[in-house]
Amino acid sequence: MIKTLEWTDEGVVMIDQRLLPTEEVYPVFKTYEEVAWAIKEMVVRGAPAIGVAAAMGVALGASDAKTDDADELDRAFGQICDVIGSTRPTAVNLFWAIERMRKLYAGLRNEKTPLGEIRARLIAEANRMHAEDIEANRAMGAHGAELIPDGATVLTHCNAGALATAGYGTALGVIRAAAEAGKHVAVFADETRPFLQGARLTAWELNKDKIPVTLITDNMAGHFMKRGDIDCVVVGADRIAANGDVANKIGTYSVAVLAKENDIPFYVAAPISTLDLNIASGDQIPIEERSEREVTHVKEVRLAPDGINIANPAFDVTPNRYIAAIITERGVARPPYQESLKRLAAGASG
Amino acid sequence: MIKTLEWTDEGVVMIDQRLLPTEEVYPVFKTYEEVAWAIKEMVVRGAPAIGVAAAMGVALGASDAKTDDADELDRAFGQICDVIGSTRPTAVNLFWAIERMRKLYAGLRNEKTPLGEIRARLIAEANRMHAEDIEANRAMGAHGAELIPDGATVLTHCNAGALATAGYGTALGVIRAAAEAGKHVAVFADETRPFLQGARLTAWELNKDKIPVTLITDNMAGHFMKRGDIDCVVVGADRIAANGDVANKIGTYSVAVLAKENDIPFYVAAPISTLDLNIASGDQIPIEERSEREVTHVKEVRLAPDGINIANPAFDVTPNRYIAAIITERGVARPPYQESLKRLAAGASG
Repeated sequence: MIKTLEWTDEGVVMIDQRLLPTEEVYPVFKTYEEVAWAIKEMVVRGAPAIGVAAAMGVALGASDAKTDDADELDRAFGQICDVIGSTRPTAVNLFWAIERMRKLYAGLRNEKTPLGEIRARLIAEANRMHAEDIEANRAMGAHGAELIPDGATVLTHCNAGALATAGYGTALGVIRAAAEAGKHVAVFADETRPFLQGARLTAWELNKDKIPVTLITDNMAGHFMKRGDIDCVVVGADRIAANGDVANKIGTYSVAVLAKENDIPFYVAAPISTLDLNIASGDQIPIEERSEREVTHVKEVRLAPDGINIANPAFDVTPNRYIAAIITERGVARPPYQESLKRLAAGASG
Repeated sequence: MIKTLEWTDEGVVMIDQRLLPTEEVYPVFKTYEEVAWAIKEMVVRGAPAIGVAAAMGVALGASDAKTDDADELDRAFGQICDVIGSTRPTAVNLFWAIERMRKLYAGLRNEKTPLGEIRARLIAEANRMHAEDIEANRAMGAHGAELIPDGATVLTHCNAGALATAGYGTALGVIRAAAEAGKHVAVFADETRPFLQGARLTAWELNKDKIPVTLITDNMAGHFMKRGDIDCVVVGADRIAANGDVANKIGTYSVAVLAKENDIPFYVAAPISTLDLNIASGDQIPIEERSEREVTHVKEVRLAPDGINIANPAFDVTPNRYIAAIITERGVARPPYQESLKRLAAGASG
């Protein structure tokens, strides 16, 4: 099993995803600032993994805050949450995780819980979120596997695998669950420029699991759909609006349009924590713009001339009309999503 | 003016497009085998440029064939044409150029033309094709510029510029002509994986011409179309079937589908030599599969793990229903293409 991130006594250990597939290195991030840096620089990426990393970062920051004064800890805690919350804007799981830690902290402080116990409870909560994420992915896999026909070739975009989560994966969890159920499944992986999560991470993960994977450049997906080589598409999500619009890695929208044009079902797999029912539609989802260098260079190799404009939106929004189903740990939502997502979300508190 | 390729007394001089944009190097290819190698390895690429390079290669081979015996020259000439004709399968301009050289040779041999004169005439013919290509591009530009509104942002894919032709370009020729006519034009250039012709060549060319260019990864095109940032698409072609189906760089089909979905006109600019009226539809166009390494590596940087499958089709086919117009040097063809292309092609002999 691939270990994406883990709480240890020395700090948060995370596989450095920037170095895969050529190097498998597990640095320790010893302060909350280091965890924030790791999220921003995409040492760890993938909406659910970012959520767990954020929770661990908050727990780490609270543990390290050298004070026995409750008011001082309150201030430090607020600061820690703000720093971690300002790393990446699109994946809602980051804010969901921080909010969950904030609520726990506020509740414990309300009850005048001793600071040492608060610190221990924050660590326990972060670890619980880690475990829950894997459980959610297993449940999502079980629901989603039913949508994958035996013998299917599944296209995926970016990496919504073990590396994007605490383990097992969302989109790749569905594929893994189908394979574990004895179905023959093959995968086409878009390389996913500019960060190449498909080439570097998805291909690496699936190869480890001996699930047959064919790597293609992003612009080949339509060609293979038109040829009839793709039976369905499964991707992850970074934020899902109340109406079912999905923000996910740049290029997802294009894949969805091409799937529709070729009558191929397009599925999204994401935990309930990815839902943002506070926003009505995808238009309101903030889209992160990342550095030009991700586009102009691969490591030290320059790909483009100087003096031109570069755009690097890291995400796009796929309108709900392109999405055949949204697979969650609580079941599969079908259109109209306004109702089906609300029902699944209500299951949370219910 | 960018010099893509040129006949000289020492051989065919071509800018090495594999090294752009970081190095601008003009090696001399001194034998027909070297020219064939340069076409295969994409030192020179782009359907019209490949055609002219092939003609120059044939002329070079005939010049170098050390014989005064006509039958021996016939055999050598056939061999030269076969070697050059087996470099790349998709762009029909390669076969068109070789066929034109073959016909000239056969005609001259029929008339018992002295071998020295035949050699000189072959060189002159290759140079004529070079000049005609630039003329055709200028004419194409004049016709196509009328389709580009003032203030338009034009998306292009791959490089259909000066570097893809003897000069000026097909798709970029249309954009250049619009700019020369005083229109404000900006370009979005898909980087065009895996060979990165958009990042390395299109961005470089347009930057030299001071036409504003924004480089994006291929998977961003749909996002910017949906946002309303793109007014039209212009691409080149490697082969156009009698029904108007267009083979062009991999990813073109996806761009065309996304353009249709977003009500953006999608134009193809290509010389008459790109028409292949012998084939009824795009299904019959052979698609070149290139080496895995183009996908797995950028220079020496490995992007993907070992042990996985890689697909690398260099072209795809865009069905005619996605194409708003085909711009040629003889005018603009509109659907139904079966009739409009036949009319334009007949203008050739007429």
